[in-house]
Amino acid sequence: MACARSSLSSPHQLPRRSHARSLNLTLNRHIPPPMAATEESLRRNLAEMLSAVESHGNSVKALKASNAPKTEIDAAIEALNRLKLEKSLIERELQSIVSGNGADSSVTREAFRQAVVNTHERRQFFILSFNIYGGVAGLYDYGPPGCAVKSNVLSFWRQHFVLEEKMLEVDCSCVTPEVVLKASSHVDKFTDLMVKDEKTGTCYRADHLLKDFCKDKLEKDLSISMEKAAELKKVLATLDDFSAEELGAKIKEYGIIAPDTKNPLSDPYPFNLMFQTSIGPSGLIPGYMRPETAQGIFVNFNYLYYYNRNKLPFAAAQIGQAFRNEVFNLSVKLNICVHGLLRVRESTLAEIEHFVDPEDKSHPKFSKVANLEILMFPREDQMSGQYARNIPLGEAVSKAGFNYHLANEMAYYAADCWDAEIESSYGWIECVGIADRSAFDLKAHMDKSGVALVAQEKFSEPREVEVLLYAYNTQLGLAFRGNQKNVVEALKAMNEKEAMDMKAELESKGEVEFYVCTLGKNVCIKKNMLSISKEKKKVHHRVFTPSVIEPSFGIGRIIYCLYEHSFYTRPSKAGEELLNVFRFPPLVAPFKCMVFPLVQNQKFEKVAEDISESLTVAGISHQIDITSTSIGKRYAISDELGVPFAITVDTISSVTIRERDSKDQIRVKVHKVASVMTALAYGHRTWEDILEKKKMGGYLVKLLSSLLRICR
Amino acid sequence: MACARSSLSSPHQLPRRSHARSLNLTLNRHIPPPMAATEESLRRNLAEMLSAVESHGNSVKALKASNAPKTEIDAAIEALNRLKLEKSLIERELQSIVSGNGADSSVTREAFRQAVVNTHERRQFFILSFNIYGGVAGLYDYGPPGCAVKSNVLSFWRQHFVLEEKMLEVDCSCVTPEVVLKASSHVDKFTDLMVKDEKTGTCYRADHLLKDFCKDKLEKDLSISMEKAAELKKVLATLDDFSAEELGAKIKEYGIIAPDTKNPLSDPYPFNLMFQTSIGPSGLIPGYMRPETAQGIFVNFNYLYYYNRNKLPFAAAQIGQAFRNEVFNLSVKLNICVHGLLRVRESTLAEIEHFVDPEDKSHPKFSKVANLEILMFPREDQMSGQYARNIPLGEAVSKAGFNYHLANEMAYYAADCWDAEIESSYGWIECVGIADRSAFDLKAHMDKSGVALVAQEKFSEPREVEVLLYAYNTQLGLAFRGNQKNVVEALKAMNEKEAMDMKAELESKGEVEFYVCTLGKNVCIKKNMLSISKEKKKVHHRVFTPSVIEPSFGIGRIIYCLYEHSFYTRPSKAGEELLNVFRFPPLVAPFKCMVFPLVQNQKFEKVAEDISESLTVAGISHQIDITSTSIGKRYAISDELGVPFAITVDTISSVTIRERDSKDQIRVKVHKVASVMTALAYGHRTWEDILEKKKMGGYLVKLLSSLLRICR
Repeated sequence: MACARSSLSSPHQLPRRSHARSLNLTLNRHIPPPMAATEESLRRNLAEMLSAVESHGNSVKALKASNAPKTEIDAAIEALNRLKLEKSLIERELQSIVSGNGADSSVTREAFRQAVVNTHERRQFFILSFNIYGGVAGLYDYGPPGCAVKSNVLSFWRQHFVLEEKMLEVDCSCVTPEVVLKASSHVDKFTDLMVKDEKTGTCYRADHLLKDFCKDKLEKDLSISMEKAAELKKVLATLDDFSAEELGAKIKEYGIIAPDTKNPLSDPYPFNLMFQTSIGPSGLIPGYMRPETAQGIFVNFNYLYYYNRNKLPFAAAQIGQAFRNEVFNLSVKLNICVHGLLRVRESTLAEIEHFVDPEDKSHPKFSKVANLEILMFPREDQMSGQYARNIPLGEAVSKAGFNYHLANEMAYYAADCWDAEIESSYGWIECVGIADRSAFDLKAHMDKSGVALVAQEKFSEPREVEVLLYAYNTQLGLAFRGNQKNVVEALKAMNEKEAMDMKAELESKGEVEFYVCTLGKNVCIKKNMLSISKEKKKVHHRVFTPSVIEPSFGIGRIIYCLYEHSFYTRPSKAGEELLNVFRFPPLVAPFKCMVFPLVQNQKFEKVAEDISESLTVAGISHQIDITSTSIGKRYAISDELGVPFAITVDTISSVTIRERDSKDQIRVKVHKVASVMTALAYGHRTWEDILEKKKMGGYLVKLLSSLLRICR
Repeated sequence: MACARSSLSSPHQLPRRSHARSLNLTLNRHIPPPMAATEESLRRNLAEMLSAVESHGNSVKALKASNAPKTEIDAAIEALNRLKLEKSLIERELQSIVSGNGADSSVTREAFRQAVVNTHERRQFFILSFNIYGGVAGLYDYGPPGCAVKSNVLSFWRQHFVLEEKMLEVDCSCVTPEVVLKASSHVDKFTDLMVKDEKTGTCYRADHLLKDFCKDKLEKDLSISMEKAAELKKVLATLDDFSAEELGAKIKEYGIIAPDTKNPLSDPYPFNLMFQTSIGPSGLIPGYMRPETAQGIFVNFNYLYYYNRNKLPFAAAQIGQAFRNEVFNLSVKLNICVHGLLRVRESTLAEIEHFVDPEDKSHPKFSKVANLEILMFPREDQMSGQYARNIPLGEAVSKAGFNYHLANEMAYYAADCWDAEIESSYGWIECVGIADRSAFDLKAHMDKSGVALVAQEKFSEPREVEVLLYAYNTQLGLAFRGNQKNVVEALKAMNEKEAMDMKAELESKGEVEFYVCTLGKNVCIKKNMLSISKEKKKVHHRVFTPSVIEPSFGIGRIIYCLYEHSFYTRPSKAGEELLNVFRFPPLVAPFKCMVFPLVQNQKFEKVAEDISESLTVAGISHQIDITSTSIGKRYAISDELGVPFAITVDTISSVTIRERDSKDQIRVKVHKVASVMTALAYGHRTWEDILEKKKMGGYLVKLLSSLLRICR
């Protein structure tokens, strides 16, 4: 995924971070280059030009007021116009720089994305949910081809992870009682900062308002100084780390108001992103729709550990819906598709929780990928303004320096975070979040539920450990009587060093002053009251809370990137229009093939239906189109759906199979269609194999025919 | 499914109906037989015996009071004891009858179910969700084997319906704005009747309280009269049709009180079963978690119709979660598994919506199944106390008599309902609801949204229809002046017969009195004012709202029945215990095979891991167990998980493959294991094929060896 080919130029865009996740080391990210020299000089030139235009304008006014000669006035006006023209040229140049990697590239990206989205809409890969009622921002339906692609991607994910790694796949409830999400901190911390229009009560995401303001200012107000531009860029870069107070202060400082009413805004306040509901008829069991699938796995840890014969490590996996009541500001509402498929209120997650020994987080297969180079963008490089670079996985993991940087940017549960990102027309977007959640969740649920969520390591041989031993004499009881228990507990609470210090002091001085906190005073411990010793003891096992390594896949985002990476256009035969193609591999294509009778004809239709039946029996998903639409138009629809093969019935004994991207065609006997398609669909044979075989077959037929002629 | 073999005797139990669905014709249902003669006579005998015991008891007291001779008293006591014994025998017999098909059968069913549930729990087919927090009634997680079975069943469902019938599969949002569910009537009608403990506010389902009361009375209070018993049985049989008032009246009449506090109960009131939430930060968009997947399809009708090239019929399908905030009364809460897997708050539905022309609801493949006989239980047979019987599908459909019976028992949207039920230890349970929803939903959404949800039929040839034509002469305007418009509108509003009558009267009498309601008076229409004619007109298409036929599959229930139908026990080798087996076919088995090294041994473990890798490459789901557990124990676990094949590595070149049910074993070369397992897992070859081939292979080897000896 990280190495997927992209048909896009790499856009410069500030990294987008999800609210709950943050990154430490980022796979596959480019960064905005340090502020370009040209921009700086352009801004200076522009500032000079603006004041020149102003002073010249004043001169012209003065000339007119003093009734100067017309020729003189005309010359001054001409000079002013030249200055204005120069100013507008500088503005244009600056505009092209601030709106991305040159304005042209930005336009290309927008046009490309629009072409993808248009094709999606026309072919119903996605449909805005409840469209006849105006839709709801952030809710999308998968139409027939989108649903088929999703189902294929999930099958492949299951094959690749669950089957390959023998993960324990589970399927847990979406409705979750509050106690679970209270323990996991979601009730308290799964929030975004909001501001309210003080008069109408309309809510906005505070960070988005500030972001929009800064971007707008940078892109549209070309008169701002270099220093102001630098400040705005810094705000954009550090926005995610702003506290409520910092956000509020900036909003006040910049005079940001409600975008639709121009009313003043409230101070930022946290808004919980979970959909709340209540379970049962009394309204007494508050609950939420799960915001991630992971908690269902954590609360089942004991079952899964038992299922795995009480052994670590193991991985549990879950594919399912997660719900986040995202807040969309007006600008997004109006242009519902801008982040439509990337920021949604309901999405399919595929999450894996690796339960590991915190003292050994190694993976048995890691050596197989240790030399694999991946485009990475470590936090330290991000801070020092460097570019992303290829780093072997082994090196990345071994460098402890990657860890624990900028801890305030990581989610509350994470000891370490990596994001896997895919480049798209929106820039690099996070598609897989990989977090070392340490023992955070298991400990939280253990505390809240009172049920131990621990693993045991049984030593193959007992291990010797030193333990402190206290022997108390009757003198202790005689000296402290009713307080004996408090004293003994305080003694036991000493750590090893304290105990050894006391032992030494008792031996040297015979007694020691000792503070007993439950009594609130010092007592005098004498040598004859107790003896302290260290002894070796054999232990047969250790008990610990497992650590959790979580790769969390956002399936919708991965599919969206798959679409962009698969999309291209090519001119139609007559060259009069551009046709859209998704170059999906057969594995994920919504249908493996289309079946068309060349013309409307009962015989051809019967053959098409027979082929369709044989494909169904073979489990090959396909569509059949017996309309009178022209074959060219049917190919175009098939290409737009990303169907790799089209089978045209043009005789009753054999058909033409056309490959989508090469448009190469071969002839295949009707009774062989299903087996050829099966081989192609399951990747047992490639189109090139088939073409080669056809050629060989052709040679063989020619050779045999020649032999036959000679023999006769 | 309807013909699935059951290892259970058919239990007598009252049909369970879901709240929103009801039935007209029921597949595969037995019914309680008419009240048995034995029960009637036993109840009479018992009543007689009770009064006999009472009068004899009084006699004994009287004898004692009168100081009668001891021998006389003793004889009376002995006679009393004999009567008491006889009474208790009658009670026992009666008890056995009222608690199902004989007490033994009921005990067997309970024990069988408990064995299934125990195996589920031990092997984690199901886990009570959030168990460490005490769980939540009606919420279950699928553990690893359960999740795998579910995923296999869904794949098969998809293959069987979506692929086979080329259905348009979609995947719509669960979060649904209120407007959609207001239109579909769920906001107003998707309710259960509740009663509240008047002091504590605890809620109960009113019908369940009444049901529990009646059942309890029938089973435990053996002293009730035959008439009372009949009345209670009638209540049980007609409970689902009770209005709020009727339920309230019965609860009052029987003096039913809150089961845990004994407080009085409120009148029944409707409780909406949807989980409510709100969308967005302002709380202004009320929403619900969808209670069925169907509405997502209906609101997308126009897209799907366009996708299907504007042609009917077509079917759309959706697999997804549905949420129902079911209410559980205390008795169920305490015994959480009683209906646990059958009445849940979150479940996976697989729903199909066939969009058809209301004038032609035929299915092209119906003739292929018309002669298939299915055990059915039509409503008319249910009412007349007959048994379920086998009826060919063709006959069932052609009998109009099946339709429109007892319309009050069908869901509000349904023109006709059939339930497909599967027999289980709970009785016959509804697993698939098949409803003709007519145009209810599309019309409702069209009304609410103002968006037309219609189909067009383009006639292959234009059709002639007769239309009324009016030609108005200037006399009309002169006669009515300002009122002309009202008169014309009233004329146009006439139906065909009225218009033809007027025409005839004008021709015969020259004028006619005509009431114009917008003027509130009669006017005189004369022959020279207008001419009325009927003319033929050609129309090229018709526009209509499609009808919807919906089969809705409750995946959780189907899987639960699959478990019960697959479960059996058999004695262990030594005969000292009963072992549990699920006889899943490879298609749905959680894993296709287990891989065991016979003993802990590095060489065997290496072979096992190689085999595991080759199985993974072949896409065969399996587990590997390299623990030191005995081979017998490992077979037992494998059988409890329903894994059809176990591969034991006992040499480094070949393995033993054991089939689960026959326990037959064959030897297979290591390099052939993956291909043999693939053939078995995908059903290309059966175990019998393999055994036969092995035998043939053996013969061949013997034959060749003999030939070789002879030749030498």
